[in-house]
Amino acid sequence: MADDKKLTTRADDFSAWYNEVVLRAELADYSPVKGSMVIRPNGYGIWERMQRALDDMFKATGHQNAYFPLLIPESFLKKEAQHVEGFAPEVAVVTHGGGKKLEEPLIIRPTSETIIYHMFAKWVQSYRDLPLLINQWANVVRWEMRTRLFLRTLEFLWQEGHTAHATHDEAEEETRRMLGVYRDFMENWMAMPVITGLKTESEKFAGALRTYSCEAMMQDNKALQAGTSHNLGQNFAKAFELKFQTEKGDEAFAWNTSWGVSTRMVGGLVMTHGDDNGLRVPPRLAPIEVVIVPIWKADEERVRMVEAAHNLRNELVAWTGRGATDRLRVHIDARVGIKPGAKYYEWELRGIPLRLELGPKDLEKQSVFSARRDTREKAAIPMAGVAASVAALLERIQNDMFAAAKARQEANSIRTAMTYEKFKEIMAGDGAFVYAGWNGDPAVEARVKEETKATIRCIPDAEFRSAVAPATCMVTGEPAKFEVIWAKAY
Amino acid sequence: MADDKKLTTRADDFSAWYNEVVLRAELADYSPVKGSMVIRPNGYGIWERMQRALDDMFKATGHQNAYFPLLIPESFLKKEAQHVEGFAPEVAVVTHGGGKKLEEPLIIRPTSETIIYHMFAKWVQSYRDLPLLINQWANVVRWEMRTRLFLRTLEFLWQEGHTAHATHDEAEEETRRMLGVYRDFMENWMAMPVITGLKTESEKFAGALRTYSCEAMMQDNKALQAGTSHNLGQNFAKAFELKFQTEKGDEAFAWNTSWGVSTRMVGGLVMTHGDDNGLRVPPRLAPIEVVIVPIWKADEERVRMVEAAHNLRNELVAWTGRGATDRLRVHIDARVGIKPGAKYYEWELRGIPLRLELGPKDLEKQSVFSARRDTREKAAIPMAGVAASVAALLERIQNDMFAAAKARQEANSIRTAMTYEKFKEIMAGDGAFVYAGWNGDPAVEARVKEETKATIRCIPDAEFRSAVAPATCMVTGEPAKFEVIWAKAY
Repeated sequence: MADDKKLTTRADDFSAWYNEVVLRAELADYSPVKGSMVIRPNGYGIWERMQRALDDMFKATGHQNAYFPLLIPESFLKKEAQHVEGFAPEVAVVTHGGGKKLEEPLIIRPTSETIIYHMFAKWVQSYRDLPLLINQWANVVRWEMRTRLFLRTLEFLWQEGHTAHATHDEAEEETRRMLGVYRDFMENWMAMPVITGLKTESEKFAGALRTYSCEAMMQDNKALQAGTSHNLGQNFAKAFELKFQTEKGDEAFAWNTSWGVSTRMVGGLVMTHGDDNGLRVPPRLAPIEVVIVPIWKADEERVRMVEAAHNLRNELVAWTGRGATDRLRVHIDARVGIKPGAKYYEWELRGIPLRLELGPKDLEKQSVFSARRDTREKAAIPMAGVAASVAALLERIQNDMFAAAKARQEANSIRTAMTYEKFKEIMAGDGAFVYAGWNGDPAVEARVKEETKATIRCIPDAEFRSAVAPATCMVTGEPAKFEVIWAKAY
Repeated sequence: MADDKKLTTRADDFSAWYNEVVLRAELADYSPVKGSMVIRPNGYGIWERMQRALDDMFKATGHQNAYFPLLIPESFLKKEAQHVEGFAPEVAVVTHGGGKKLEEPLIIRPTSETIIYHMFAKWVQSYRDLPLLINQWANVVRWEMRTRLFLRTLEFLWQEGHTAHATHDEAEEETRRMLGVYRDFMENWMAMPVITGLKTESEKFAGALRTYSCEAMMQDNKALQAGTSHNLGQNFAKAFELKFQTEKGDEAFAWNTSWGVSTRMVGGLVMTHGDDNGLRVPPRLAPIEVVIVPIWKADEERVRMVEAAHNLRNELVAWTGRGATDRLRVHIDARVGIKPGAKYYEWELRGIPLRLELGPKDLEKQSVFSARRDTREKAAIPMAGVAASVAALLERIQNDMFAAAKARQEANSIRTAMTYEKFKEIMAGDGAFVYAGWNGDPAVEARVKEETKATIRCIPDAEFRSAVAPATCMVTGEPAKFEVIWAKAY
């Protein structure tokens, strides 16, 4: 149960606030192994809803789930030159098993391209076997000791999609399609606006031709890379002999894509929506959307009010206006010995979108008293048609949370021409998403990172670009090759 | 795609038959790391349905999901004496991470009692925090090089429930409740009859007070331990200081249970129901329950028949007679260039419960031709009310598969008094579940295992015991302390 000490405010110390929310809302806890975490039921419940929604989207776009081994021969990692360079420093190595030293060490998957394309090469013979559209829900390990719960941990949970196609263009289409699925999920389920775009060469996935990402702005104006989608070209196909017979009878290497999102999104949700009272969960991802708190004074009243709460719950759950498979998720907090105010505090901390208070007077008036978690607005709702009213209110909350996050993102984005001096001030201060010209030179990118810790988040897709493209590079004054978004990032 | 060489028959070589079915139905494949496997979409689809059904049952009995780390300090394993003895020889050890040798090696979880009860000790203070009812879906690693796909692999997927209670009796009740959930699932979803009972001291879980299991008979008369539920007593609570303040204000150690089932169940499903034509999946676990094969000669006919197949599919899927959330799962095989016979062969190999053939003549007669996978019975079904008819047929298939497996189990169980000589003959031959008296001496158990490879599967629960309890020990002739079931096992 949450203790009732006040949370550090976001303004005072955003990072401390984040940790307190995660720990006190019981989303996660530190584990005895440095760098790794325990996901507690409140956090895992959100992840389960994320999984369910994404899994449905993956299946609707033709993907099937499978499962590949955790342990990969060390030699596999070395088959793709960029890939080994990117991941070798981060791997956990198993040297002993069953009481014996292994002949070849095994690594714990940091990602599964190598093992999966090895298997694909076994399964794909002809163009008829393509496209092959596979997804895996799994844990991965990347060595990391500077733990940030959900954001950066030694082990995390994720999904990784892996596909093989006959042509570059089909692979590119798939890469973009899945980026679109991620954006749809993040905006419409997480209520978290994102910017989609292309990663620069220095920020792309180790082994990819092109990496696209979804970038979201947290409340400290830092960027969270919330999902990535890679066109892997033929790099892994060549390394793992993933060939097929074409319709013409030639032999050709397949084209691959991979794409992933992880439990990091739970951290993104906290940093997008949380406030100084705790978490705020968008209704569509909330394991509990509505908590009913019956209120009583005398014990005789208690029995009656708890019964009324159950009647209300039954009415809400029975309602099928959102479709038979999407019932309202309702919890009754009838705990004895805890005052209503303490209950409110706890459910606010946990971010439950809507609270319904039900006391003798409400019952008399045939209404229930509602409190929105997002705006903390309070209003009576008539009992007549209460389920439809509650569902409509939840939908409004979902939409308002997205609109608020979108407005904040726009308010903290800077698109006006700026000098590098001014940029350094911004990055040393409150930060922002700065839209600026870039000459395309990786040395400029490296220098800015060194001097300000800001990086190019992406070359944004057309719809996110400024009406008038910046003409010059913010740093060098040379002609700009790209408009890019600079920000500090998690 | 499946090749069309005939399968080895079960009678010829049960073990070869099993491997061929698993590989050719594309349930799983060998991986490059010896001992580990890849679960392919056809196998993973069955596992997903198993997960969904079990997860709903766990939640209905008050459990919540969480996630604990893959990597556990080596020292944790040593805190419970029996536990380390049982698992130390099987662990995979991580000695290097992030390019450095670790100060303390980490083991990959072979099971998670140690890390979970360490965390429980942090979370539980008072009797008010009990019971704590947690489940985890995860991968585990137990070193194993004699791979049998799904049955014995280095890594496998499972769920492990872990609970903490205030009293021994509550823990015992939970242990038995979850054994009951497993039995319910195995019988009513897998159509696999099981015998529940208590494990002997030498067969119980390392660290448990008592282990109960579900034992199923495979078609080679060997037993598969398909699920276990352990009353852990206070063994782990004492090792990990999992204490709580009682209602009276004393301090006491909690009582724990753990229980698990794994992807091994997919192997059990194959060995319970498969026949010489391949897999047979019980409808409730089949990702595809019904495959529609439209039949045509001329191309003009093809368009019309494929359209008719879609109309049929739409009618089946729209039907809500099983409840709005449990629609019929239907696939159309309209592939061009593959003859109907080849399609039938492939869907039979994959074990799809019901095939509907739809040709011009069927359409004329306003009916569809059905072929059950389990009995291979064929019959026309009128189009009028086709969805209800198909659903009823699927339910009959589910029930008939269970009845057939149950009859086979009973036919191969021997409850008549027998000499040890006769027993040895049986175990050297076709095998059986032999119900016999046992004097309770572990030395007798060890001797029988040594001489016949048979083990005591369990001391069966009352409902499975013989009407007249055996009076004497089958081996020594001494008075019997228990009636037990002997069998060879996977």
